[in-house]
Amino acid sequence: MKLWLTTLATALSLQISAQELALDNTLAYQLTESITVEVGQRLAGSEADARAVAWAEQKFKQLGYDKVWTEPFTMQYWERGNASLSVSAPFHQNLVVTALGGSVATPFDGINAQVVMFDSLEQLKQADAALVKDKIVFINKSMGKDKLGTFYGSVVGARAQGAVEAAKLGAKAIIIRSVGTSINRFAHTGIMRYNDEVARIPAAAVSVPDAMQLAKMLSRQPELTLHLQMQNKLPGEVVSHNVIAEITGSKYPDEIVLISAHIDSWDEGTGALDDGAGVGIVMATGALLKQQGRPERTVRVVLFGNEEGGLVGARAYAAKHTASLNKHVFASESDFGAGRIWRLDTGFGEKALAFGKTLQQKLAPLGIEMGDNTASGGPDVSVLKAQGVPVASLQQDGTDYFDYHHTPNDTLDKIDPAAMQQNLEAWLITTKAIANSRIDLRQ
Amino acid sequence: MKLWLTTLATALSLQISAQELALDNTLAYQLTESITVEVGQRLAGSEADARAVAWAEQKFKQLGYDKVWTEPFTMQYWERGNASLSVSAPFHQNLVVTALGGSVATPFDGINAQVVMFDSLEQLKQADAALVKDKIVFINKSMGKDKLGTFYGSVVGARAQGAVEAAKLGAKAIIIRSVGTSINRFAHTGIMRYNDEVARIPAAAVSVPDAMQLAKMLSRQPELTLHLQMQNKLPGEVVSHNVIAEITGSKYPDEIVLISAHIDSWDEGTGALDDGAGVGIVMATGALLKQQGRPERTVRVVLFGNEEGGLVGARAYAAKHTASLNKHVFASESDFGAGRIWRLDTGFGEKALAFGKTLQQKLAPLGIEMGDNTASGGPDVSVLKAQGVPVASLQQDGTDYFDYHHTPNDTLDKIDPAAMQQNLEAWLITTKAIANSRIDLRQ
Repeated sequence: MKLWLTTLATALSLQISAQELALDNTLAYQLTESITVEVGQRLAGSEADARAVAWAEQKFKQLGYDKVWTEPFTMQYWERGNASLSVSAPFHQNLVVTALGGSVATPFDGINAQVVMFDSLEQLKQADAALVKDKIVFINKSMGKDKLGTFYGSVVGARAQGAVEAAKLGAKAIIIRSVGTSINRFAHTGIMRYNDEVARIPAAAVSVPDAMQLAKMLSRQPELTLHLQMQNKLPGEVVSHNVIAEITGSKYPDEIVLISAHIDSWDEGTGALDDGAGVGIVMATGALLKQQGRPERTVRVVLFGNEEGGLVGARAYAAKHTASLNKHVFASESDFGAGRIWRLDTGFGEKALAFGKTLQQKLAPLGIEMGDNTASGGPDVSVLKAQGVPVASLQQDGTDYFDYHHTPNDTLDKIDPAAMQQNLEAWLITTKAIANSRIDLRQ
Repeated sequence: MKLWLTTLATALSLQISAQELALDNTLAYQLTESITVEVGQRLAGSEADARAVAWAEQKFKQLGYDKVWTEPFTMQYWERGNASLSVSAPFHQNLVVTALGGSVATPFDGINAQVVMFDSLEQLKQADAALVKDKIVFINKSMGKDKLGTFYGSVVGARAQGAVEAAKLGAKAIIIRSVGTSINRFAHTGIMRYNDEVARIPAAAVSVPDAMQLAKMLSRQPELTLHLQMQNKLPGEVVSHNVIAEITGSKYPDEIVLISAHIDSWDEGTGALDDGAGVGIVMATGALLKQQGRPERTVRVVLFGNEEGGLVGARAYAAKHTASLNKHVFASESDFGAGRIWRLDTGFGEKALAFGKTLQQKLAPLGIEMGDNTASGGPDVSVLKAQGVPVASLQQDGTDYFDYHHTPNDTLDKIDPAAMQQNLEAWLITTKAIANSRIDLRQ
């Protein structure tokens, strides 16, 4: 690694400091290990979420950040209960199921109803209500794989909107094939939505093998009945927190370079890829930047709360910091697992594109190519982008991300420490370049 | 496939019949699909086991077998209840756990105790009782991968004997790292044993990621406490069945060529690899053999019951058929998943080894090499081998077998239909060669 950095230094005609040579540490990975082992899952609003916030405050302080604080926000708390799904007739079998986040419970004795299968949300929307009424809707849409995770968008609609569309047609409940790319028998959770115009029906996901199994059963026996039981709770409003820490800028302390991740996770895994890795990467970035000499602009690390519930912490942050958003010179989030970064996408003003190109040239030795100028900056940061903050996305290779995402299988062992290190180096180069420049990325 | 078979025929100077060309069917896979989709899991002694027996009787009849019958045996029934394991202090987290087959329940409120980790059963055996007393023992032994699954033997001892060894030292319970090769978060079940000399303590397995997690926690906090709760039931003696079907030999009907699999499975997957694949392969073999012209010796297909509980059906079969075991000219079992067969091992008399070599030459176009003469014939068939019945093992590539074995992830989608077809062809060639010969494999 030292040798490689030296080669990198030569390539970039940079002078490598002793601190930079210390880059062959594993701080990002260590932090991810720490949060997943010592805290584990941290469902937004839960007791574990509070432990994660306390963990982050303590770590930021240990890492030598200049300022560390939390910002509270209110949120609707949802808690998973037991869930079970079985084929009640004619092939009695249990299926692997998980409640979608936000779903209401079933009645205590569950729902027993015939199932009707659709290939997609679109097909459900066009269905005859007579076919759907009093049944359990099953949407069986599979998902493809690529580096950017582009297939997610075309499949996740069934998760988010399926319950509303099924309820419009009189369904008793909805189950979807997991929004995921693995044939391992894990069901994928994630947030779903209701609206006030239709009944709130229970919504769940079955694992991919169980979806395939159900489809095979239906081809033998279209009159199949299912029994779904879920005991979720919606206790109401609670307080959660964004955790924020800064390395104060030496020359322009009021100019904020914001790097971020989200501290909450779904509750069945340990939130290693989503988003323990991002937490480790951005916390380590700020800490090492300070070790390498204080940056000129302030580097603010934000660990947003309740991203999974719908960017709740990010919206709270944007609302609270409205007055200073024009001083946010840049924002970016690491929230796509722990794969190697392979592309830099920007969301800069036209004049700043040349700076983007220069930045990419600095990143090129890490195997990072130039992307386009349509970056969202990451889920939480998209809220800031919508208010005019310039962003970039250091695109990670997400080919396998949806094998694990939102399942019990999102655990530390899925992370390659070497890839984490490459991420850390890319974030250091990017953050430093922006924090030590006068570039106006809005222009 | 037809072209390939023709090439095979040329290589072997065999005449290929129309029926043999019909080999490009998918009968073995279809049968495996049928039992996994229409019956699913079939825990020995359960209501599902009885449905599996009925399924097999009906399928054998549909497939044109000459005789179909069942043979009852009694067994101790064990039923899984809910299981949960959590770290109660200091890192509150839930771990993925499953009860080992045969384990007693915990008290209703569970067991809360400090944990003590060992690298292996051997290390536990040498431990000081003071270190173990009143604790939960954790054996954290990892397992390697190879085609033959040879690492299983050196790891599974902790599962089988761990509870007895831990109880000798006064432990309250035992948990083991899953006997498996995958980092997916599934716990591996399987039979465990008690003896009458020590207390019966609860025994469970955690998934590989959870074992790694627990080890990382212990390196931070050796005083870690766990809370284990399991509600297994041991209702007592029940009746299960072996299912047997024959294609009666045209010339030597009293000489029995026995091919087999086991009909029971563990209860968390659908028993596709273990042993739905074997069931499909041997049922299809007998059916296609008859289509290709009645064999001279009788081909008997046995689907043994309760293999998982410790070869219970196989022992019942051997006891019931003692008088005719000398007429069993051959026995073999398919019970190692659905990978391609790559090696023929025999358990023949010395004089019959030449026949074994000729048989392997017939199998060589399928990519099957010659192994040794120490074959067990398969788990159930090892009981017959012990009584002098000649055996062979058509060794499947089991590299990935222990990724899925005894977990909820043992489902149909893990099976490659093309590999099933190769298995079927190898079983057809082998069974036919022995059934249509006068070879005495005992000599």
